Amino acid sequence: MTSRKADLLITDGIVVTMDAEGTCIEGGGVAIVNSRIAAVGTATAMKQWTAPHVIDARGGIILPGLINTHTHAAMTCFRGLADDLPLMDWLQDHIFPAEARLDEKKVYRAALLACAEMIRSGTTTFCDMYLFEDAVARAASAAGVRAVVGEVLYDFPSPNYGELEHGFAYIEKMIEAWREDPLITVAVEPHSPYLCASDLLQRAAALARRHRIPLVIHVSETRSEADQMQQRYGHTPVGFLAEHGILSANLLACHCVVLSEEDFDLLEAHDVKVAHNPESNMKLASGIAPVPEMLRRGICVGLGTDGCASNNNLDMFLEMSTAAKLHKASTLDPTVLDAETVLRMATIDGARALGIESTTGSIEEGKAADIIVIDTRQPHLTPMYNPISHLVYAASGSDVSWTIVNGRVVMQDRRLCSLDVDKVMDDAMRIAEEIRSG
Amino acid sequence: MTSRKADLLITDGIVVTMDAEGTCIEGGGVAIVNSRIAAVGTATAMKQWTAPHVIDARGGIILPGLINTHTHAAMTCFRGLADDLPLMDWLQDHIFPAEARLDEKKVYRAALLACAEMIRSGTTTFCDMYLFEDAVARAASAAGVRAVVGEVLYDFPSPNYGELEHGFAYIEKMIEAWREDPLITVAVEPHSPYLCASDLLQRAAALARRHRIPLVIHVSETRSEADQMQQRYGHTPVGFLAEHGILSANLLACHCVVLSEEDFDLLEAHDVKVAHNPESNMKLASGIAPVPEMLRRGICVGLGTDGCASNNNLDMFLEMSTAAKLHKASTLDPTVLDAETVLRMATIDGARALGIESTTGSIEEGKAADIIVIDTRQPHLTPMYNPISHLVYAASGSDVSWTIVNGRVVMQDRRLCSLDVDKVMDDAMRIAEEIRSG
Repeated sequence: MTSRKADLLITDGIVVTMDAEGTCIEGGGVAIVNSRIAAVGTATAMKQWTAPHVIDARGGIILPGLINTHTHAAMTCFRGLADDLPLMDWLQDHIFPAEARLDEKKVYRAALLACAEMIRSGTTTFCDMYLFEDAVARAASAAGVRAVVGEVLYDFPSPNYGELEHGFAYIEKMIEAWREDPLITVAVEPHSPYLCASDLLQRAAALARRHRIPLVIHVSETRSEADQMQQRYGHTPVGFLAEHGILSANLLACHCVVLSEEDFDLLEAHDVKVAHNPESNMKLASGIAPVPEMLRRGICVGLGTDGCASNNNLDMFLEMSTAAKLHKASTLDPTVLDAETVLRMATIDGARALGIESTTGSIEEGKAADIIVIDTRQPHLTPMYNPISHLVYAASGSDVSWTIVNGRVVMQDRRLCSLDVDKVMDDAMRIAEEIRSG
Repeated sequence: MTSRKADLLITDGIVVTMDAEGTCIEGGGVAIVNSRIAAVGTATAMKQWTAPHVIDARGGIILPGLINTHTHAAMTCFRGLADDLPLMDWLQDHIFPAEARLDEKKVYRAALLACAEMIRSGTTTFCDMYLFEDAVARAASAAGVRAVVGEVLYDFPSPNYGELEHGFAYIEKMIEAWREDPLITVAVEPHSPYLCASDLLQRAAALARRHRIPLVIHVSETRSEADQMQQRYGHTPVGFLAEHGILSANLLACHCVVLSEEDFDLLEAHDVKVAHNPESNMKLASGIAPVPEMLRRGICVGLGTDGCASNNNLDMFLEMSTAAKLHKASTLDPTVLDAETVLRMATIDGARALGIESTTGSIEEGKAADIIVIDTRQPHLTPMYNPISHLVYAASGSDVSWTIVNGRVVMQDRRLCSLDVDKVMDDAMRIAEEIRSG
């Protein structure tokens, strides 16, 4: 047998590939050459590979890195600032005043903290919407995390770019600057139908189409938003987007908590992608998105944490557990959102929602090496009848031992390799001091 | 200043005492003499204390150990055996056949695994109902965890004690054997109104009264249980218990998912305690217990994980997070079950639910030293505006660094001191092998 050379090997794990056939390989391994997956296979098949670096998964699980389809990374610096309040009090008395104190440097530092947390909990890709988004792109790039990033656009002046005209210029500049980057994809991200007039939305959609990049928007997060849209325009939020030609297969609609029958039809007909954020929707009392019905119709639904002001962490394992359980309680059907379905939402379907499924979301030859290793040798993951059950119902982010993004080891046995975690935490605490002192 | 000698000191933490006033002490400490808390105070106040062992909390949180008011510890050996199934298929095709293979030795080993998991996630007291319960008591005692334990009673022969008559004898023997034990309280635990006729219930209640020990029972877990009771007896499950004089202040009613207006009145009038198990109720699609209404009426509600076959872990931090969020989503009110309320449910109210609030549930002079330390120097707990918010909304069990029960350190900086964790896991895996091989 001739020996083949890889840069990095992962051995002795249960490879949960998340490929179309749901292949799991007991005692399997993965060979990584440069940034890509060169081979996936059984222990025997992997024997032909050698590499200067070998990660022994020690019987644990080898999984595609998780994909967080909706967050506001820099909001880590508001974690726990205010909870358990009516939505408008929370926003107007706490979040908006705190956001008014942000600048590019603070956003960069808070986004680095988010990246540290995501790497440590097994997330290798996130989709972000916020202010000063170029700083988020730089933070993700520095941390070595894959990201889809977009500056938020709305019909009033932004603390970052000022007038809307400059907002579009800012985005075009970002698109240009990050065009060839292996980790960063720039998206166009108008805030929501209720904060964006049709002009803005149509221009944003055209820009996304021209560059073949995702269009990301908040849609129908609360009943009051839906009521308000009905009053103003005589449409549901989804209906309003349809009316203005915004619905398409490259639109990622975040939340979709309140949907009419016609909304379902529209989302399905236009192949719109949805980001489901159960913990944030619960904590803000927005309600429970009708995910079982979306899945029944074949709508692609990814999973997201939303920002840390409304969650209050970025742990996608906990989000999976909540998603799997919440819809069983709300439908009184224990068979909906089974573990495998939810794991797909957090991996390959998340990639599909972001339009990057040819690059990431599963462990398959030729894809980018975005891979995590889960240490299952722990009391709360013992015994193990079914690895997928454990990933969704028993594990948490702290069980991730190794995180690899685009072939680069960014966490080694729980130690962050790409960031100085003490400096990152200290910087975030200084931001909190400033916010606390008003 | 004269020096006072303690056996163990915990220093430099935010002491979240959970006393009646909700006292939190920044930069505080706790002195432990023998098994008890001798002092709680500020850094200055604690300077008079010296001890041979000092735990530096390093700015983290010092919290009463969490109290799991309802579990079936030995079901750890069925973790992930079967999920996402209709309740009756799950029970009859998977859980009951697996339970038929249990014996005292297996229950002991599976309960040890549960204790390992609980210690590592900050639970210092659990209330258990199962078969071969003396083995659970021995496991808890060996692991150094506080437990309220009761052999399950029902109107058919038990794989442990056989005929019901022997069941009562088994319990009386356990009461005698554990009477003076510092950690173990024996309870009387009839399974449920639908599996126990009134004779059994009345005899169980009399036994509990005679020994002044808790009476623990499953009540109104599902709509179908409530419907069945209505058909058979013309009563709700709670109404049936009332009819037979079983409701009292030392009754712990587990679940209470389906309640009528009259049920609320009865629970309130009799000061019945309730164990709320949100994750299990969600996963089994039982529904959402009306906890906000129970709390509004002043009913004492503790929190529980239920068994690992329906959760699938014993992490009370995750249970707190779920409880706090779930009721906001179901009532569309973001102010219900605020973080402090939920933390009380998992500590002092849990102790009250088990009738052991004079011993545990808060950090107060004279109580047993059941204390945990949370390491907050981590990205996902940074920054920290409010420690109680982090405990409920951002932390998980893996953030617990030290666990102390009755003055004994059972986990030191994440290393279990009272158990050989590798042996415990290996033993559990052998049980799983037997179950898997049918």
